[in-house]
Amino acid sequence: MASPLHIGFLVFPSMLQLDFTGPYAVLAAGPDAAIHMVWKDALPVASSDGLPFTPTVSMADCRRLDVVCVPGGGGVQALLSDAETLEFLRRQAAGCRYLCSVCTGALVLGAAGLLRGYRATTHWLSLDLLPLFGAVPQRRRVVRDRNRISAAGVSAGIDMALTLAGLLWDDVTARSIQLNMEYAPEPPYACGTPDSAPEEVVAAVMARTASRRAARRKAAQAAAALLDTGMNAADPV
Amino acid sequence: MASPLHIGFLVFPSMLQLDFTGPYAVLAAGPDAAIHMVWKDALPVASSDGLPFTPTVSMADCRRLDVVCVPGGGGVQALLSDAETLEFLRRQAAGCRYLCSVCTGALVLGAAGLLRGYRATTHWLSLDLLPLFGAVPQRRRVVRDRNRISAAGVSAGIDMALTLAGLLWDDVTARSIQLNMEYAPEPPYACGTPDSAPEEVVAAVMARTASRRAARRKAAQAAAALLDTGMNAADPV
Repeated sequence: MASPLHIGFLVFPSMLQLDFTGPYAVLAAGPDAAIHMVWKDALPVASSDGLPFTPTVSMADCRRLDVVCVPGGGGVQALLSDAETLEFLRRQAAGCRYLCSVCTGALVLGAAGLLRGYRATTHWLSLDLLPLFGAVPQRRRVVRDRNRISAAGVSAGIDMALTLAGLLWDDVTARSIQLNMEYAPEPPYACGTPDSAPEEVVAAVMARTASRRAARRKAAQAAAALLDTGMNAADPV
Repeated sequence: MASPLHIGFLVFPSMLQLDFTGPYAVLAAGPDAAIHMVWKDALPVASSDGLPFTPTVSMADCRRLDVVCVPGGGGVQALLSDAETLEFLRRQAAGCRYLCSVCTGALVLGAAGLLRGYRATTHWLSLDLLPLFGAVPQRRRVVRDRNRISAAGVSAGIDMALTLAGLLWDDVTARSIQLNMEYAPEPPYACGTPDSAPEEVVAAVMARTASRRAARRKAAQAAAALLDTGMNAADPV
């Protein structure tokens, strides 16, 4: 076996934990994977649903990663204008094999300027924000464009990670992981996309998230403006 | 809104974290859910893939729960003969609305004597162990029999939790959660069950898990024997 594959997840306050734990479960099951949880410091960060996760390495100390994955969640908004995070992603992007996102994590890659000219996807409620960063939105579950792989909302991270496992190792390994996780989903409702969900359910989710979406749009617009002027670098020189 | 629903997950060393984090993500998204992570003490427990989780309450101090859920994983083996855990589950079972398991968590419910005469499911590699505990194994993804709800392996916990959300709240709430998680899975391989997976993949998983399965069978047999003699109570009197 060669040296381990170094797979790094950005973890941050108010991330959606399943965006992170789903792909983690898949990739940690691969042969010889070293998983890193990267954040500014070593203090635990709480997910949006209250689970604390303790980073294993700081952005400053993080080695070159083979795979970088950015989960989504409410905490994304703060990251869109966080120079340290955007710089970290740009630095890692220069050397990694795959640069991945789950859910609204794609917006962070976008704010770092790393999706310009790339096809990508994100949570259905944020798909319309991708063009702000020069990305080409795709209403699909997993989108791969060159070495960028993005997943739609939350649970799509599992599909993305299995796809990635096939690329990092091989099909037999990815299939074994899928079988071991017994991943043959049977969602109890036909309701996982805005197209399949009943209208009143879509309307309820839209209504409940309206103010959050407005704030996110504003943050994304500000981040896109900074990106266009090159002002979001930690060290503009 | 009435008082919160108290939902407790047993967390333990070497659990499969997705057995826990998947249902957690679903149920924590429900209105007014108070989630508890229950273990013997307050020290962090590491999942089988290395993620630490910190219990929020001890078994001794845990209030009456509305929902109890037991994840699976390698750590299950030790629980099968752990009197404190089995007693805790029996005590909670007497008062809870739903008693749930994901993956091999069903074996722990079985060892506590809580699946006798109940239809149940578990990870496909452990399905043949359920009859040891008087349960009636079902090769299905989610099985509900009266107030026992069990899920097949790992990822089936998400399907189980959405089913449970429909019971705890209502269909519109459960559908909203599913839509918000964009749970419209597209597994990259047709490989999530032993029936759909290529023979060589099933054989590889069987071979890799052979010694683990033998040890688990031995532990389950021992637990079943204790259960039959009533000797697994913490306080046999």
